[in-house]
Amino acid sequence: MTTTTKQPVLDAFSCPVPTSQHKEVLLAHGGGGRLTQDIIQQIFLPEFQNNILKPLHDGAMFSIRGTRFAFSTDSYVVNPIFFPGGDIGSLAVHGTINDLAMCGATPLYISVAVILEEGFSLDSLRRIAASIGEAARNAGVLVVTGDTKVVDRGKGDQIFINTSGIGIVAQSCNISPQRARAGDKILVSGKIGMHGIAIMSVREDVGFTCGVRSDSAPLHGLVADLLREDPTLHVLRDPTRGGVAAALNEIALSAHLGIALNEDEIPVSEEVLSACEILGFDPLYLANEGRLLAFVSPAHAVGVLRKMQNHPLGRDAAIIGEAVSDHPGLVVMKTSIGGERIVDMPSGEQLPRIC
Amino acid sequence: MTTTTKQPVLDAFSCPVPTSQHKEVLLAHGGGGRLTQDIIQQIFLPEFQNNILKPLHDGAMFSIRGTRFAFSTDSYVVNPIFFPGGDIGSLAVHGTINDLAMCGATPLYISVAVILEEGFSLDSLRRIAASIGEAARNAGVLVVTGDTKVVDRGKGDQIFINTSGIGIVAQSCNISPQRARAGDKILVSGKIGMHGIAIMSVREDVGFTCGVRSDSAPLHGLVADLLREDPTLHVLRDPTRGGVAAALNEIALSAHLGIALNEDEIPVSEEVLSACEILGFDPLYLANEGRLLAFVSPAHAVGVLRKMQNHPLGRDAAIIGEAVSDHPGLVVMKTSIGGERIVDMPSGEQLPRIC
Repeated sequence: MTTTTKQPVLDAFSCPVPTSQHKEVLLAHGGGGRLTQDIIQQIFLPEFQNNILKPLHDGAMFSIRGTRFAFSTDSYVVNPIFFPGGDIGSLAVHGTINDLAMCGATPLYISVAVILEEGFSLDSLRRIAASIGEAARNAGVLVVTGDTKVVDRGKGDQIFINTSGIGIVAQSCNISPQRARAGDKILVSGKIGMHGIAIMSVREDVGFTCGVRSDSAPLHGLVADLLREDPTLHVLRDPTRGGVAAALNEIALSAHLGIALNEDEIPVSEEVLSACEILGFDPLYLANEGRLLAFVSPAHAVGVLRKMQNHPLGRDAAIIGEAVSDHPGLVVMKTSIGGERIVDMPSGEQLPRIC
Repeated sequence: MTTTTKQPVLDAFSCPVPTSQHKEVLLAHGGGGRLTQDIIQQIFLPEFQNNILKPLHDGAMFSIRGTRFAFSTDSYVVNPIFFPGGDIGSLAVHGTINDLAMCGATPLYISVAVILEEGFSLDSLRRIAASIGEAARNAGVLVVTGDTKVVDRGKGDQIFINTSGIGIVAQSCNISPQRARAGDKILVSGKIGMHGIAIMSVREDVGFTCGVRSDSAPLHGLVADLLREDPTLHVLRDPTRGGVAAALNEIALSAHLGIALNEDEIPVSEEVLSACEILGFDPLYLANEGRLLAFVSPAHAVGVLRKMQNHPLGRDAAIIGEAVSDHPGLVVMKTSIGGERIVDMPSGEQLPRIC
């Protein structure tokens, strides 16, 4: 009789980093990193497979009767629901607008579906509804359909919001992670990590005062400006859960390219840096809700950077690195002290329920 | 100094029926009845107002470059997540397909966004993903985009799913609650109350054995048949939360018409009737997830009824009443014993978290 012990020696020395051999959902499965990818790749994709879903872009893109559309969905479970610079309502509007914008789409219509916990304050609900309405009006999108569900006390957490959205994509536009090319310059539209630190500063368990406000904002106007400057723009991505690190790792894997970052060029505020030092966080892994990363051919990079810097949401934009043919699939950063380090895909999220 | 006591005498004798003077969300706010309408009318609509949202149809309808679209969203919080005849996954697919079908649309694409509770079984998630995939394939729609969020243990309840969907509407089609006319015959596509009783039979707290399976099913194929028979069809509505009673009351209010029902004609199975007797429920208020109500001009009523009865999902279809110019806004039923009773809009739901 043969026994089926698998790699007993390796198991005995196995690393505590989360792997995909779980039986239950972990908080890290929602972190936007490796474990989120595991659920998508191993559980959902095999069941849903089709060519529209396959690129795993921020939104789906398809043509109907000659018009190109983008369609996106996101649920928001951010905790706490009110935070410096926004709330779960405005965040839900901006988030879905941004997913559409990252497809190069002009957002038109959104849906709003709420799951309320029994006992949730109707005054807070009014405040959130007003915030959704204001964010939609400011962004020029219409809330055209919705849904309201209530769950018993202790089976939800105040309010969860799903927004889905539809937008139109210009025929000339061809934005996708697979279009990154070696030599592309990588631009970020502003200071990173502000949403993550703003949420952290008002968490009940670790609250501290730092004055950082969330960067939550709708980016479709900025994207429209960039596409006017460079209609051939290769890749757009908003570095939300998992931050710049997760977004760049995903693009590196999709495009089979390496990414070379220059730490000195990455815009981070003093406040975020200080908070990161105190809390032991890395700004590259913090969520952003009003920033984008763009991969632009070298010929257009300076023009696109100027367009960004001329837009109110891109004032602090910078070129932070480039795509390279070396080390495909890896993000490598030249550090301020002259060394190099691999910026790995996060396994989970430094901070659960960030959006 | 004047005091601002409001209606002290009336308050002292106030009725225990829920009113809109609440400070907190009640389970009844999610029941699809009067309190759900209160939240929509008093909190959401004033903030979101626009002409596409205004009709409060099951989905939004709009034209883009000459093509008519329907767009709908629903979150599913059903408890338990597995039940006779389906699960939260298939229900989420069917529900959004049906919302689109009730606009007369051919559903094309859906999104799937899940909110998972930490500790939820990944095996159950696999089973639900498979069920979503199978339901979508069977219905001929594609899951093209999605989202995965995780909340901490005790802040959710295993899994909540949001599906949103997009479909195309024929130019000739003009279905809306406002199009009901006095004289219209009211058809129901099958036996009512089965979803509600199926869920009830597996609730932990009141479980009983009755053999009733949910009617959960996608209705767009049936609707396409009906529209071929009668392209002028006036109203379609799927009587989900709040059941036939809530759906007909909403239509009566929207169209400023009375509705006359005939209890003897309403198809209900023996099993559902027995369960209702034991539990003190009224089948008219029980949720359905694979039934539709149609308002059809008298000239087309028999033809449409036959089409229904020839479809596998409409075998037990019946004409259950008509729209009348008397008692506008009221649903009045001629009972089996010869009397008449008002079928009122439910205030809450007999059974929370039914879908």
